[in-house]
Amino acid sequence: MNRTVSPDAPNSLPRRRMLTGSASALAAAGLAGWSSGALAQTAAAAAPKPLPAYVDWKNAKALIVHSNNTMETKRSAYGTSVITPSDQLYVRNNLPPPNPSILDDRDAWTVAIEGVKNPRTLTVGELKGMGLETTAMVLQCSGNGRGYFPSKPSGTLWTVGAAGCVVWSGVPVRAVVEALGGVAAGNPYMTGTGGEVLPEGLDPKSIMVERSVPTAAMEDALLAWELNGEPIPLAHGGPLRLIVPGFTGVNSVKYIKRLAFTPKESDAKIMASSYRLTPPGEKAGPDKPSIQDMSVKSWINSPLPEDGTLKAGKALIEGIAFGGITAVKSVEVSIDGGKNWKPARFIGPDLGKYAWRQFVAEVELPAGTHTLASRATDVKGLIQPEARVENVRGYNNTSWSDHAITVTVA
Amino acid sequence: MNRTVSPDAPNSLPRRRMLTGSASALAAAGLAGWSSGALAQTAAAAAPKPLPAYVDWKNAKALIVHSNNTMETKRSAYGTSVITPSDQLYVRNNLPPPNPSILDDRDAWTVAIEGVKNPRTLTVGELKGMGLETTAMVLQCSGNGRGYFPSKPSGTLWTVGAAGCVVWSGVPVRAVVEALGGVAAGNPYMTGTGGEVLPEGLDPKSIMVERSVPTAAMEDALLAWELNGEPIPLAHGGPLRLIVPGFTGVNSVKYIKRLAFTPKESDAKIMASSYRLTPPGEKAGPDKPSIQDMSVKSWINSPLPEDGTLKAGKALIEGIAFGGITAVKSVEVSIDGGKNWKPARFIGPDLGKYAWRQFVAEVELPAGTHTLASRATDVKGLIQPEARVENVRGYNNTSWSDHAITVTVA
Repeated sequence: MNRTVSPDAPNSLPRRRMLTGSASALAAAGLAGWSSGALAQTAAAAAPKPLPAYVDWKNAKALIVHSNNTMETKRSAYGTSVITPSDQLYVRNNLPPPNPSILDDRDAWTVAIEGVKNPRTLTVGELKGMGLETTAMVLQCSGNGRGYFPSKPSGTLWTVGAAGCVVWSGVPVRAVVEALGGVAAGNPYMTGTGGEVLPEGLDPKSIMVERSVPTAAMEDALLAWELNGEPIPLAHGGPLRLIVPGFTGVNSVKYIKRLAFTPKESDAKIMASSYRLTPPGEKAGPDKPSIQDMSVKSWINSPLPEDGTLKAGKALIEGIAFGGITAVKSVEVSIDGGKNWKPARFIGPDLGKYAWRQFVAEVELPAGTHTLASRATDVKGLIQPEARVENVRGYNNTSWSDHAITVTVA
Repeated sequence: MNRTVSPDAPNSLPRRRMLTGSASALAAAGLAGWSSGALAQTAAAAAPKPLPAYVDWKNAKALIVHSNNTMETKRSAYGTSVITPSDQLYVRNNLPPPNPSILDDRDAWTVAIEGVKNPRTLTVGELKGMGLETTAMVLQCSGNGRGYFPSKPSGTLWTVGAAGCVVWSGVPVRAVVEALGGVAAGNPYMTGTGGEVLPEGLDPKSIMVERSVPTAAMEDALLAWELNGEPIPLAHGGPLRLIVPGFTGVNSVKYIKRLAFTPKESDAKIMASSYRLTPPGEKAGPDKPSIQDMSVKSWINSPLPEDGTLKAGKALIEGIAFGGITAVKSVEVSIDGGKNWKPARFIGPDLGKYAWRQFVAEVELPAGTHTLASRATDVKGLIQPEARVENVRGYNNTSWSDHAITVTVA
């Protein structure tokens, strides 16, 4: 096994379709300039792309650059230290990030709190005096695992790398709400609106980032200013991000400008028809389930096919497992494509119900070709399924079969 | 409160004596070239120094560069996310690090395991197949807090910043030892030898990094290849570092080339006379207690004097607390220099007995000048002391009084 991300290691992941859904949408909207990287790469899809300037502090060796706004962590780069370092964390922005000057005075950033008894606009500086909590959690893009859908849905064809386990610090939303008199009656939704600058001449609803989750999700939600011990970088939503643990990344709204408790879900396109679990052949819309809470999932990070031919004998299978909206309880591994399973062992610190756990299992690998798989179970007894739930946009792929890998042993 | 490490923020910490003990020693040994940065700075002690090339990936805004081999985290940079990101982690090397080429093939690095029934030299690649564990722990230099000794002992005058809470992954030492038949009889010490290249013409014992700890410490020790989710950087001991949780940093030998179970402690200078708790006026030597396990300590990271004048009223006091060789149980804060104490609350995930916890306490700060202090207690009931233990080299400063800060409120 070789965990080292070598500077000379070829990008051994399969080539992917490079014109992403969001790039297409922007092009259609006359905004191609916003994603020039994404469009330019259609001409040279094979070459590894450099990091865009706003994330030039990231570890290029650990990332696959799909476009200016979409980068995933290489499966070989995850390591075994629980936390995903920020410089290896995936990036997925629905819109280009705001001007970096919004970080010049982080404490001056404002967020309007609405739908509470005493609505107010608060600065980050004020929020910092209202409470503090720190939460470790899996941040995962709704489309993580989309690359395993044979239908190759539109959108970035992520494999496992649009996920990380990170630590956020900020004020609990419930503390802010309490300070403002509580949620006003008749508001079952918590709606966050991003602070991206929207182009003129377009219907804002068609492009803005505005997501609604059940108001109950505020119990564990944060208005966060810190990621993994540092002020939140622009790429990840700094100076202030709504964090909704247990929910897919899109629900944790970046550059949050407005947090409103509302009687209805947002009617912005990103809420009304995007991020919906739409069965094949049907049309997305508010009647379809919204992509919100995550469910139990795991995958193997070592060994990997790119490690080359393994030596027969004892081998350690290592990976990560998480429960999503609930805690993970256990994980099993298989070396025969899921015919037989044996328990794996969790290692390292338990960072709480929303974090992932690392696992290791010792197996005997005889010479031959083997399909290695992992299958997690959450504390409610839900078992990671063998099959994905087919849907038009390729969301929520938790299939253990899709995440299995084949290795050769001599 | 302003947690942001602003690019324009002046380094508001007091100026320190810049010719460090290790730089002096090297100069005396004719090795001045090894620490040119450290010596050059005596000419321009006031100007903030740039990061040395081998740590140019670090966050310069979060660090105070004392010399080429000594850099500390600014107190204002700690944040509240439990883990200290690697790019903010302090650096303290007893010798200049080896050539970076030792990272070219990390899995090929070898370590000799001696004093076991079946001694063997193992590669990192082999170690990776022998077991895996992940441990979060406080890494702290023996001299952290030396800057608060009025005697200004020789050595880097660290305040709080020669410490971090980090995550290591590697193979448990006990798993390696078991695989090699167990510790051979009559070896009460575990002795680690660093792989730094020693100059010819000097007695190796006078300069080599070789430390002994009780063999019992192997129970939780690792041979680690990963720090915070990435292969260990050169500055922190990659490709392989001995990790001894609960012990000061010097005992976690970098670039480890030999791990021996030995009948006696090493007679290298760094073990025999350096890192000894020597009372004032006495001479260091093997009869004095070795600096090994850490004890209960805490300090406040916010607010800080450099935040300027605070507004009267409610304030959150935030900081970190750890037990060292044992777990921390609780922490209190005082706003009157230790006359009265009130309990603070731990926040965020508990990463295990060797990690630190973050705390927060809500207080009322009237106008005036206040001395803020924190005082931790470990699970065995040991309370962080008010006074430091005076010693020649300024080790093990856990005094709550020394770590107290004074803020102005209007």
